[in-house]
Order: sequence, then C-alpha cells, then structure tokens
Amino acid sequence: MKELNDKEQREIKYPPNSAESINLKKGNYTFAKNTESDPLLKLESGAQFGPITLDYETYGNLNSKKDNAILICHALTGNAHVAGKVDANSEIGWWDPIIGPNRPLDTNKYFIICSNILGGCSGSTGPHSINPKTKKPYGMKFPTITIKDMVNAQKRLLEGFFNISHLKAVIGGSIGGMQALQWGVTYPKFMDGLSVIASASKLSPQAIAFNKIGRHAIMIDPKWNNGEYYDLPDDLDGLALARMVAHITYLSDEAMQIKFGRKHSNITEYFDFDEKFEVENYLEHQGYKFIKRFDANSYLYLSKAMDLFDISRDFPSLKEGLSQISANKTLIISFSSDWLFPAYHSKEVADILSDLKKDITYYELTSYHGHDSFLIEYDKINPLVSDFLNKI
Amino acid sequence: MKELNDKEQREIKYPPNSAESINLKKGNYTFAKNTESDPLLKLESGAQFGPITLDYETYGNLNSKKDNAILICHALTGNAHVAGKVDANSEIGWWDPIIGPNRPLDTNKYFIICSNILGGCSGSTGPHSINPKTKKPYGMKFPTITIKDMVNAQKRLLEGFFNISHLKAVIGGSIGGMQALQWGVTYPKFMDGLSVIASASKLSPQAIAFNKIGRHAIMIDPKWNNGEYYDLPDDLDGLALARMVAHITYLSDEAMQIKFGRKHSNITEYFDFDEKFEVENYLEHQGYKFIKRFDANSYLYLSKAMDLFDISRDFPSLKEGLSQISANKTLIISFSSDWLFPAYHSKEVADILSDLKKDITYYELTSYHGHDSFLIEYDKINPLVSDFLNKI
Repeated sequence: MKELNDKEQREIKYPPNSAESINLKKGNYTFAKNTESDPLLKLESGAQFGPITLDYETYGNLNSKKDNAILICHALTGNAHVAGKVDANSEIGWWDPIIGPNRPLDTNKYFIICSNILGGCSGSTGPHSINPKTKKPYGMKFPTITIKDMVNAQKRLLEGFFNISHLKAVIGGSIGGMQALQWGVTYPKFMDGLSVIASASKLSPQAIAFNKIGRHAIMIDPKWNNGEYYDLPDDLDGLALARMVAHITYLSDEAMQIKFGRKHSNITEYFDFDEKFEVENYLEHQGYKFIKRFDANSYLYLSKAMDLFDISRDFPSLKEGLSQISANKTLIISFSSDWLFPAYHSKEVADILSDLKKDITYYELTSYHGHDSFLIEYDKINPLVSDFLNKI
Repeated sequence: MKELNDKEQREIKYPPNSAESINLKKGNYTFAKNTESDPLLKLESGAQFGPITLDYETYGNLNSKKDNAILICHALTGNAHVAGKVDANSEIGWWDPIIGPNRPLDTNKYFIICSNILGGCSGSTGPHSINPKTKKPYGMKFPTITIKDMVNAQKRLLEGFFNISHLKAVIGGSIGGMQALQWGVTYPKFMDGLSVIASASKLSPQAIAFNKIGRHAIMIDPKWNNGEYYDLPDDLDGLALARMVAHITYLSDEAMQIKFGRKHSNITEYFDFDEKFEVENYLEHQGYKFIKRFDANSYLYLSKAMDLFDISRDFPSLKEGLSQISANKTLIISFSSDWLFPAYHSKEVADILSDLKKDITYYELTSYHGHDSFLIEYDKINPLVSDFLNKI
C-alpha cells in the first residue's frame, strides 16, 4: 500500500468540503472608478488609484442583519480560494480544514469572505493588470501598495458590494495576520473579534533581508526585463529562486531534518556534481511549480508591502497604535519553531494588549513545522479559533 | 569625532600584526605532477588529479625538530592570509587577533601554516586554473572535490614541501572546522591537538538548502555561461546574490536587529519602491564587493564540498568515525546564536568523544553574532585556545 503523505493524511482527518456543503460562491467587484460616489482609493503613499477589481469567494450565508460575516485575510502568495473543492480536479482551498459545517469557521453560522489582495495576481488588480491609460500591463508602473491599502480595498468591497458595515471577526495568518492587525487598529469599531496568527506588528530585519533576496533574484533575471515580461514566453528563474529561498524560511531546521535529512537522490553517484540531495530537488520543484501560478511583479510589490508594514509608524509608539484596538476579543497565536515570524513578535503585541487591559488571549503553540504551522496544525489551532468565536 | 565601527574597535584592542612581527612568509607549492615520486592526488570520487598548486602563508619559525607546526584551515571564502598586514593598504589577515607574539597562536613558539584550499581561488588550484590538457580554465570540467581531498592536498604540502610529519595542532572554523575534524579522523597520529570551531560532522538539510540557493543563483545567471565566463567582462549578479543570502546565515536575528533594526536609507521616500532598508543596502554592498574577489565556479565547488562532507559516511556510524581520533586534546567550540552550524551539531560530536573517553573540552559560547562569532568573539575564544595549546 502506498504510504500517505502529510497532505493526504490531513485530507482523511479533515475531508475536503464540497463547494455545495459550504455554499461556495465566487465573484469579483470593481470599484474606485473615479466618480463622485465611487472615488479613487487614496493609497498610503498619497497616490490616488483606481479602478480596482477584487476577486472574492464566500462560504455560508449572510444573515438578514448582516452581522454574521467573518473576513479572512490571506498570506503572501495565497488567494481568495480558502475552502472547498469545486470538482475532482480542482485545488482544495488553502485553509479548508478550519472552515465548513461544524468546523470553527462554521458555514452553518457564519458568512465567510476572502478576497485576493490588492496587488495580487489571482483575479484582483495588480501589476499584471491592464493600465486603462496605456492599455498595457502596469508592470513596475504599479503604485507601491501597503498592508493598509489592502485593508482599505477590502473595506470598499465589504461596504460597497456586500453592504456589510460590521464584521463578526477578522482573522488572518502571516501577511494575512498583518492585515488583520491593521484592520483592528485602523477600523477598531468594524469588528467584534480579531485574530492574528503567525504574524507581527512589523517585520524583523532578517525577514526583510529574505524578502530582499527574493526581490533581487527576480530583478537581476534578464528575463524579468524590468517588469515587462508579460508577452515573453520564458520561465522566470529569478521568481523560482525567490520561492525557493522563501520555502526555507517557511519550514524549520527540525522540519527539514525530519522531512529530508541528508537523503540523496542518487547515492551511487554521490560525488557527481550534478546529483542532488532531496532537499535540493524539493526546493527546485517548489520553485518551478510556483512560477506557473504566480506573477513576479506581484511578488515584488507584495513582499515590499510586508517590509513597509509597521503598526507603530503612524503613532508615537507601538503601544499607542495598539491602544486603538477595541475588538471585544483578540486571539493571537504563534508557533514555537516559526523563525520568519518568531513567537517573540506575537508575544510583544499580546503583552502590550494585556498591559492595555484588552481582552487578549495569546498562545505559543509547540510545533516543529516552522512558519507553515498555521497551514498544518489544525488539531491545535481549530479548538482555539472555535473557543474565540464562541466567546465573542 | 567619527564613531568607530566594530572592526575599527577590534583593531584598537587587537592591533594588527606587522608582517615582520610574525615573520609572515608567502609562497606556493606545486605537486601531483604525475611522476613516480609525485603521483596524482587520488580524489574521494576516485578520479586522479594533478598538478595541484597550493598557495600558503606561514608565521613564526619552524624549529629544528619540526614539531612546533600548527595548521589552520580556513572557511569557505577565506584564504591563506590569516594574519598580518603587509603594508598600510593591504588587508589584515582574517584571524589576526588570535595570532602573533603572546597571542594564543604564539608566533614566538609556533610555526603556523595556512594554505588556500584545493578548489579555492586565492592562489591554489581551482576551477579558474588552466587545465594543462586544454590550455583553458577547467570551469565545470573541474573534478568534484571534498573536504577529505582538501585535507589530502594539505598533507602533501606539509610532507612534500615543509617536510613536516607531525603537527602540534590542527585548528579551523566553519568549513575549516570540517577540515580539522577530517584531519583528526583520517590522520589521527598526525597531530597532538585538534580544535573544531563553529562546525559540524555534517551539514544539516537547512544549510544544504542555503548552499543550493547560492549555487542555483549562480547557475541561472546567463552571464555565468555554464562556467565559461573567464573571458567575459560582466559582473556575475548570481554570485553576488549567493553571497547576499549567505550573509544572512552568517549573522543572527538578534545581530541584524542590533546592527540594522528597521533603519531605512530614505525615510522621507519610505513608499518609493526603489528605496531600501539599511539591511538591504548592506547585503547588496557585501554581495557586489564579494564578486570582485571570488570566483563563481569556486563557490559552486566549495559549497558542494561542504554539502558532501559527512564524517559518518566512511564508517558504520558517526561514533565509529569519531573513535578514530587519537589527538591528545580536542577542543570544540560553538556559539549560542549560530544557526548555520547550530551548537547541537558541535555538542553531538563532543558528547560522542566524551562517551569514547577522549580528552575533549566543549564550550558553547554565548554570543549574538551568529556564525560570524568565530571571527569576532576573540575575548571569549582566545583564552580557550591558549589553554588548549598550553595543555597539549
């Protein structure tokens, strides 16, 4: 019998939701059309930008009072497809095990929304989009965007399209956690609950350094062609390399030890320069798989947005920034082996919120899966998120 | 008054040795000329290779009994210039503070030798060297070399040129520590003392992964041209990128926090896509400085040698490998914040040697400087190395 891999084992424990069982709906909304009732989006840089399309998915049903909506914010290379499997050949949503009937984000109770972020490349407006002024892709003419800009775009979607003016909760992991935190600080009255997972109030210089490596890899690749590669057929090796280095930061030393150790793909040709350790093949596989689905310019802009994010920037201190938060409940989760968003970053935020007498629950979960834990450790995360939502 | 940087402060505390004060001598030795008395070097891969030139430096004086020699093994991108400053404009040796009159590697007592490793690009035979058969640089026709091959080449230099058949000690840090450990296992009777600093008996998959990133960065750069770039004028961006990512692994999260934090080089243009955090400028500076002095193909071969290194490979177990060691004293040092060669790797070796009743001293030194600690923490390292040498 074939041995099941981690993902297959997870799917047995958390059977993928069918699109019907969670009432999966897809769509997109275009706004900021520069009319009086629909003005351009003012970006944090000061620029005015539009039109903007956001691609979204929803699960469950919005109740008549429109007070059961939960917004999920996705991570760097994620998209709006959080849950469900449309047909046998389609991808399962990236956070499927936490969503569905009788799961924490219970589609029998809540109306769950996720939109592909501004700057992304999975249906929302980003550098790949056609600039209406030039009729060509924006490329590097796309404006610098920030986490706050993503949040402001999400707010326009919620208010302008769904007619939702208050959320049950905002929840996100990694760069999605940055968005959630920004939501809590910038629009404190907009939600009852706030959950920030495997994230931080700002990126450490080490994490900025890794983002820099990714951007530099993309930009020194001649095939990137200053961002004007959309008509060119070549694979962008630089983007593959960016993904490869990012993958190292998503795992942990221990996870790599368990997953790969020093296994070699051709031990009889150990001294052949072209032969590789399994960890090398894994990284290459991940890198070159990634470039089939992701846009290099989006990677540049989104990683830059991560770097620029710093809740304390608009305030005299981080504490004053976090004091804005007025959610009834805040849940912060970190993971012991996450070295991209180390636990001490989350704990710093939790400690300040605790000092400020906010209703804050903080967990550092033990896991060897590194940053990826938030996409793996459902046995540990799900009860905490259930409890959090039940108590709001 | 200008604030002194770390390096300048160190030079006040440990004034650079003049070439005279340590009796610095430079030279090179060519061997493996394929004659009966000077056969080719049999590489670990099985290939026979030669001729080989090793570039070396020595400090102090070899005594008449030829029993006061210490071999220093250098790290990945190091060279034979360990100590001394030849004139005002020349570089200080990379481990100068530990060497010299009345320093641990006391040039009044010891004769110190370091040679640029086989495969290197600072005077020794490497991929940049002219292949006598083709009259062109070897490039990627260079044979795969290993840590053991480097050690075997060093042994030919010691025996064939210096007429030294026994060393007072072998000492090395990082990949130099790998060489020292290999010396201790393969030629156990050749030395009295063995010191392995910031190193390991094998590389972890995470460290292999980072080496892979570096190699991939070099090899996807079209200017690398399959290793045949020696006549081309271009800067190899891929090599710069390899160095940039390596630099992250040489520091630590805390060191980067202290050194850079989130300092930005142009805070008034914070949202300009082309503006950078200081850590980004630092990495670029280091990357593009590096390519002026280092050969991309050497980087490929030497990082591969690191990956292939595994003391346990020739034995049923690591313990049986380490049981070969018969040095009178072994000193192993690791650093608390080193995550490229984490302390647990050193401790594993030390624990086994201890189980085997060898005379082993192990220290995990507290430092926030990461892997670079072995090139910085002289206040902590020097007393340990002095004590080690005095007790041999």
